[in-house]
Amino acid sequence: MLRRLEIRAPSRGLCEFTGEVRAIVREAGLEQGLCTLFVRHTSASLLIQENADPSAKRDLEAWIARLVPEGDSLYTHTLEGPDDMPSHIRAALTAASLSIPIVDGGLGLGTWQGIYLFEHRKRPPPREVLVHLIG
Amino acid sequence: MLRRLEIRAPSRGLCEFTGEVRAIVREAGLEQGLCTLFVRHTSASLLIQENADPSAKRDLEAWIARLVPEGDSLYTHTLEGPDDMPSHIRAALTAASLSIPIVDGGLGLGTWQGIYLFEHRKRPPPREVLVHLIG
Amino acid sequence: MLRRLEIRAPSRGLCEFTGEVRAIVREAGLEQGLCTLFVRHTSASLLIQENADPSAKRDLEAWIARLVPEGDSLYTHTLEGPDDMPSHIRAALTAASLSIPIVDGGLGLGTWQGIYLFEHRKRPPPREVLVHLIG
Repeated sequence: MLRRLEIRAPSRGLCEFTGEVRAIVREAGLEQGLCTLFVRHTSASLLIQENADPSAKRDLEAWIARLVPEGDSLYTHTLEGPDDMPSHIRAALTAASLSIPIVDGGLGLGTWQGIYLFEHRKRPPPREVLVHLIG
Repeated sequence: MLRRLEIRAPSRGLCEFTGEVRAIVREAGLEQGLCTLFVRHTSASLLIQENADPSAKRDLEAWIARLVPEGDSLYTHTLEGPDDMPSHIRAALTAASLSIPIVDGGLGLGTWQGIYLFEHRKRPPPREVLVHLIG
Repeated sequence: MLRRLEIRAPSRGLCEFTGEVRAIVREAGLEQGLCTLFVRHTSASLLIQENADPSAKRDLEAWIARLVPEGDSLYTHTLEGPDDMPSHIRAALTAASLSIPIVDGGLGLGTWQGIYLFEHRKRPPPREVLVHLIG
């Protein structure tokens, strides 16, 4: 079964959409199975991270912004703006696809795990995530 | 088919559990299929790495400890200890899920590939890994 | 369904093989499903990246070569050559497996996404990628 999610991140950074995926899994009515997410973009990525304390999210955003800064003299791919090449690198270091088993009719996430779109552009367009379910 | 593995890493670092996954695949009796692993934590992750020479494992551990050190002045998420925020970042840079095809009734790993839990906490709790198999 | 691809990268760096995967998916004749790729090596990895402008590919290669350089005094795993340990680390930071939904009989990639083997060795051997399809 295939569903499409459109995610509109308000800004650069981690945008949680665990609830949207849970709703799709619930509706599918599978007791066991596998849920696979795939982001159809190269300047946004997927991440499973702690969703309890917002400071963890902020620190991760700040850390990767420092590791892969804008304005690096190494970049030659600059036509699409100063945030474009860092976006591709940050996406390469995180995930394009994630697979989460379905357990007892729900997502098999751990207690503190949330599913995030990692938006890397400053003025984000709507993003499409494919959700594939198999029983 | 869904199985659960509990991994007790003796310490921070890479803890191989290829044998446990191989045993689950063998027992399932699938000639072909897909084996997906998912770690239910945000301060431990999954990694496929060389399992021939232990020096590769040690160098990888040392390299990531230097890239994402404890005590970075950037961190504000410090309530759970100095090794907590580095753990989340190290987990974000590696994998939460891995999918390995089943070939001729066994895991389709390459000759030198092993499956590791990458434990990022200094005093690791037991970790749960979900193993999903489909034929 | 399982297929094997042999990828012969001409050199270190990103080697696109989207066309080969598309051909396998087309031949399989599945309207919907999931396509999972797995690289059977620890010094090469998989990546989904922009395939429109070659400068994005070159910048990513240069960036990771600077982040994980050869000749780092930290390395003790040096017997297999100066490019071996950096290869393992670069592979750890990118992906060993990727899962892409099948949509309307084809790969559900976004407009600008290509599938790449990220070859990390200077004199690359042929690489094997397993392609698993399920409907």
